Amino acid sequence: MPAGGSGTRLWPLSRATNPKFLHPLTGTDRSLLQATYDRLVPLTSPDRVHIVTGTAHAPGVARQLPDVPERNILVEPLARDSCAAIALAAAVIEQRSPGAVMASFAADHLIKDTEAFAATVHAAALGAQEGRLMTIGIAPTRPETGYGYLRCSARAELGVQQQVLEFKEKPTLAVATEYVTSGRYLWNASMFVWRTDVFLRELEKRRPDVFTPVSEIAEAWDTDSRDDVVGALWTSIPKVAVEYAVMEPATADGLVATVPGDFGWSDIGDFETLGELLATEQDGVRVVETPGAGVVLAVDTQDVVAVPAGGRLVATLGVRDLIVVDTPDAVLVCHRERAQDIKKLTEILRDQGRTGYV
Amino acid sequence: MPAGGSGTRLWPLSRATNPKFLHPLTGTDRSLLQATYDRLVPLTSPDRVHIVTGTAHAPGVARQLPDVPERNILVEPLARDSCAAIALAAAVIEQRSPGAVMASFAADHLIKDTEAFAATVHAAALGAQEGRLMTIGIAPTRPETGYGYLRCSARAELGVQQQVLEFKEKPTLAVATEYVTSGRYLWNASMFVWRTDVFLRELEKRRPDVFTPVSEIAEAWDTDSRDDVVGALWTSIPKVAVEYAVMEPATADGLVATVPGDFGWSDIGDFETLGELLATEQDGVRVVETPGAGVVLAVDTQDVVAVPAGGRLVATLGVRDLIVVDTPDAVLVCHRERAQDIKKLTEILRDQGRTGYV
Repeated sequence: MPAGGSGTRLWPLSRATNPKFLHPLTGTDRSLLQATYDRLVPLTSPDRVHIVTGTAHAPGVARQLPDVPERNILVEPLARDSCAAIALAAAVIEQRSPGAVMASFAADHLIKDTEAFAATVHAAALGAQEGRLMTIGIAPTRPETGYGYLRCSARAELGVQQQVLEFKEKPTLAVATEYVTSGRYLWNASMFVWRTDVFLRELEKRRPDVFTPVSEIAEAWDTDSRDDVVGALWTSIPKVAVEYAVMEPATADGLVATVPGDFGWSDIGDFETLGELLATEQDGVRVVETPGAGVVLAVDTQDVVAVPAGGRLVATLGVRDLIVVDTPDAVLVCHRERAQDIKKLTEILRDQGRTGYV
Repeated sequence: MPAGGSGTRLWPLSRATNPKFLHPLTGTDRSLLQATYDRLVPLTSPDRVHIVTGTAHAPGVARQLPDVPERNILVEPLARDSCAAIALAAAVIEQRSPGAVMASFAADHLIKDTEAFAATVHAAALGAQEGRLMTIGIAPTRPETGYGYLRCSARAELGVQQQVLEFKEKPTLAVATEYVTSGRYLWNASMFVWRTDVFLRELEKRRPDVFTPVSEIAEAWDTDSRDDVVGALWTSIPKVAVEYAVMEPATADGLVATVPGDFGWSDIGDFETLGELLATEQDGVRVVETPGAGVVLAVDTQDVVAVPAGGRLVATLGVRDLIVVDTPDAVLVCHRERAQDIKKLTEILRDQGRTGYV
């Protein structure tokens, strides 16, 4: 479970030091991380769940998942993008359980239908046993331009394995509409299932510059020399996404397959999504209820998403198409059409040296 | 100095328990009450300043004005509108200093030119000595529909006394424009100067239902029986504005005169005014700086008034024509055109039993 990224499009709710996966954005009092864990444990056991996370979040992860052994919380000294994180997990797991089937799921996604999810993972695990690099593709429900797509060999049939022909970057709306209409494209949710030995072999073939240091680090991981080896090698690992480093070239070689899934998946990427998924509608406001949320009083208000996470009263009068987020130390008022640009605010704050707010 | 009203159009900055006159809305760290006091003391002395206020604000007034003797802080048990408040002050002052000239100024107005103000008050005091009920009328600078007007006997000449022919209620925009063009109308800022014996005589003539209980209360005020007499009589005093009860009928009898003034007067009535008078412009936002104010970060923002009085960061992105007010326990986001309706929110909160926010 890679647990990284600070969720800057959910600022000021999500922070570098308190990122979205640690927040209870699930409609319950469980965090996204905990909800992901809850979904995975029935498919394995707590001592087989591994989390790769950064130094800032390791304590939060450790406290939120008390049943996961400490040795399974793999703390990266510095973020080196998804290939390094996933390779580290694969190499450490391979050290501990050679030839294991490993499945990788982001810690900050929301899934409604846990049973359908489990069935899809089981189907993917069969393909992984047989030596393929499996992905779980999401049957698209709209021409979303915010996700990458998987071009498949056949029209999607839920639960039925098929070959992936190509990984596609985030498309334009026109292209995304074509994709969805064709029935041959799936959303790439970065859900992967594979045997660790198979993945590491492909990584070695494609990216020895990642494979070599990660392998040495993994060999030292459960020994006294871990700190020395990590200190010597970690920063030499190139920053690259696992899709670009391994999955795309392996796809071209016919090694990647997918199992299409439809289990109410969402990437809680921005406040619009949060408002759609987790809010209760009230007087023209979608109120995102989190534990300890404040009261919202909306008068003559339309199409507003309010996140009263500061515990304060949030009042709106005569406004529309806004996102209003209250937190203990920062308030955001943003036009709904600018939801994707919120991360710019965090960049400006960093530039201003106001890192305490980021 | 009547110090009352909770300033509901400045909610959530101004509260019933912490009204605007106790707030430092002056561009300095002095509150409106303190700034009013600072303006008046050079015209008299601290021991001759009297404040009429409610029970909720008496401690705040006492602490903010440590040089005013305790006996000069006249605490009304319940608000009975301006005639009762001013009559109480007049009757108590008349008990203590018969025939004194008394001047009455609201505690929540802002005045830029203190010297011009002092000169105008002196001119009005001369008229008061001669037995007239004096008002200070403000030379209007725009066709404001939010104020009452004084119709005068001549075109306004600053500092020159003239007769008031009529008190006019808040006009329509068309009527207000006529008033301003004519040069014969002044804004009524409820600034009065008179001999206490003259005022009380007129009150007795026009409103014995106010005069009689207030006189009995004033006689008992500096005695051990104050509580008993106040308890027995106060609630019997009718709620009526001093303009309606005394000034309008006295005007009809030719007893009211005015000295026109032009000293940068403003009634800090709403956030629009606050934004015009006390804000510093920054990236499309007028930021109202109060002591302990938070930082404002505005990106692609236009015509927004921000009051970061909660000490938090207030960020805006892609929005316009808003009022954003942050306080320790409540946040308001309001369209600028609805600035006058903010008091409705306080009414709703009261109805909901959420009186802690009001």
